[in-house]
Amino acid sequence: MLDSTRENLSADDVERLRSIYEPLTKSVRELIDATIRTEADADAVTAAKAEIDSATARLRVRQLDGPVGLRFIAEGERMPWGNVVVGTRNPVAPPLVVNHDPSGQVWANFHLGAAYEGPPGHVHGGVSAMVLDHMLGEVASDFDNPRFTGTITVRYLRATPLGPLHAAAEVVRTEGVKAFAVGHIADKEGITAEAEGVFIMPRWARS
Amino acid sequence: MLDSTRENLSADDVERLRSIYEPLTKSVRELIDATIRTEADADAVTAAKAEIDSATARLRVRQLDGPVGLRFIAEGERMPWGNVVVGTRNPVAPPLVVNHDPSGQVWANFHLGAAYEGPPGHVHGGVSAMVLDHMLGEVASDFDNPRFTGTITVRYLRATPLGPLHAAAEVVRTEGVKAFAVGHIADKEGITAEAEGVFIMPRWARS
Repeated sequence: MLDSTRENLSADDVERLRSIYEPLTKSVRELIDATIRTEADADAVTAAKAEIDSATARLRVRQLDGPVGLRFIAEGERMPWGNVVVGTRNPVAPPLVVNHDPSGQVWANFHLGAAYEGPPGHVHGGVSAMVLDHMLGEVASDFDNPRFTGTITVRYLRATPLGPLHAAAEVVRTEGVKAFAVGHIADKEGITAEAEGVFIMPRWARS
Repeated sequence: MLDSTRENLSADDVERLRSIYEPLTKSVRELIDATIRTEADADAVTAAKAEIDSATARLRVRQLDGPVGLRFIAEGERMPWGNVVVGTRNPVAPPLVVNHDPSGQVWANFHLGAAYEGPPGHVHGGVSAMVLDHMLGEVASDFDNPRFTGTITVRYLRATPLGPLHAAAEVVRTEGVKAFAVGHIADKEGITAEAEGVFIMPRWARS
């Protein structure tokens, strides 16, 4: 089934698959939050666990042998459904919806809840690094030129609270196979963490 | 309920809570993996979603108003149950079990599956950054001296495959409220990503 990661889906296929699997993923995100925050008693937890195990068994009746990888729409658009940051089929992803401005900047408004906690009430510094790595990598890449992180530096100006957040990134310059990008995460009071990184086109993508 | 984050639990309380909630969390981790990889048909997904929503409702009957924060055992041990990297009650956490060597080094063996994917078949670079931020922060802190990330730099030597992985970190020097730490992630072939960072004691913890 790993070869299915290279299949070309029609736009209709994509819509059909989305309508089946996205509501499921959203339900699992709710369950993750409830699992972390619950104070239900042992009997309620036992009953919930039985339902969860039953759901897992139903889903595993037919499944990919490995992770999702990339799917492609016939026109070439990449569908990173399993991606841990933006994957609409990955319950671990918030997911970020990354917007591309005509100026070349990318940005996202998103919400991080209990599942992303580090210091009490605050986003884990590693989650901020994960979000920034994704945003910088996204702006450093385009369809013809995928680029992966070579080095990234994240500076934490203050703790990032759980709740509604904003992230943005832009390319400051390119040098052949390298792109230099910067970005930040902000809450409603302003920037909490900023990053700079160099992103490199992998050898297989250099024609 | 947020005040409950400061309660002191007895060792018996901790064991009782662990026996109720850890099996639940493990089941939800399995469900996350199944949700990403499933190719079940629409009817099976609808049935699974109904069970998941029912489980969520059972768990939400009694829950914390916010995220988990820290719990403390009566003897002072910190229990970061909700932590996104090490939290045994957070289904998003792999979770890492961090070992402290007498030498001062910390290390962890862990497994990253489909939920942590970036490039097809590989760990998202941001997940590597998250793991490294946690490991360096853990080794830079101790019970009397919590330290949070000031700046961290991650260098990617090659792509990290999904599967069994190892991470380690150590402090190279301290300067007053600052600790300088280094660390890496490795697969069975060797190091895939390395990090260095400065970790700073927050003002409230000084004196």
